[in-house]
Amino acid sequence: MLHREYDTQVCSVARSLEVVGERWTLLLIRSVMLGARRFDDLQAHTGVTRSVLTNRLRRLVDEGVLERRPYQERPTRHEYVLTEKGLGLWSVIEHLRQWGDEHYPEPAGPPRVIVHRDCGGHPDAHLLCDRCGAALTARDVRAEPGPGLAARGIARTPGEPVPTST
Amino acid sequence: MLHREYDTQVCSVARSLEVVGERWTLLLIRSVMLGARRFDDLQAHTGVTRSVLTNRLRRLVDEGVLERRPYQERPTRHEYVLTEKGLGLWSVIEHLRQWGDEHYPEPAGPPRVIVHRDCGGHPDAHLLCDRCGAALTARDVRAEPGPGLAARGIARTPGEPVPTST
Repeated sequence: MLHREYDTQVCSVARSLEVVGERWTLLLIRSVMLGARRFDDLQAHTGVTRSVLTNRLRRLVDEGVLERRPYQERPTRHEYVLTEKGLGLWSVIEHLRQWGDEHYPEPAGPPRVIVHRDCGGHPDAHLLCDRCGAALTARDVRAEPGPGLAARGIARTPGEPVPTST
Repeated sequence: MLHREYDTQVCSVARSLEVVGERWTLLLIRSVMLGARRFDDLQAHTGVTRSVLTNRLRRLVDEGVLERRPYQERPTRHEYVLTEKGLGLWSVIEHLRQWGDEHYPEPAGPPRVIVHRDCGGHPDAHLLCDRCGAALTARDVRAEPGPGLAARGIARTPGEPVPTST
């Protein structure tokens, strides 16, 4: 377990990475942010094995990053939603996205475009809206499939909602 | 290698994590940002094994995140400094730090305090200075040991420069 390995560090970065630094964990949180909430969707979205996915989801629920909610009875099935604490990781994910878009660009353009719901602008390098200047958080934005995704023949990924406009 | 596992993903977050998502990598970048530049300092700072450290440093140099620079001749010794690309990860690290400070606080207070060099303010949730409002980047700030580090009897960590003021 990663959290044992980092345990000698007196550092808030290390402490955060104990929770989200395991392989696949940040990618999984990204998938939930993109709208994949159910186990099978999350598996298809990440490509991770079922056992690793089970393990990562359990840990994120234990840490209060995700909440496990029933969405169906007989048989009971659950979906995973981000808590307030989990939504607080949006800034980490969004900066990883921006860094990837800048340094490892897809030839056709960004795979996803993050849009300010209120005005249609985009988050800048300080997560302020580049159109209206609003200080953005996870709740203020939606992700839309970008040209980089379309160029690979992918309209959207499993569990992601169909965008309301194009 | 993580980058092979994430390779089916058309996603800039996944692409970034191929480079910095391996165990220890973000923690290592944090250590370089805190001022640890030499192999032995980085090993002491992270507690990682020499072979893992060698592997991670090589990959980060190959990807242009770190630059390997000689600081001594006969025998030649090298130190590792962040490139512009590497400095671009400051926002990721800083948001991980803020998330850790918020959700896993040290009883005595934050282990490190990030200070705007020009005015003594601190980065807010959008990495703007909470005193003067400047949009902060890696070059604009320094890290100082905070009360959480002192309470554990650690004045500073190997390779970290002594702060110029307290």
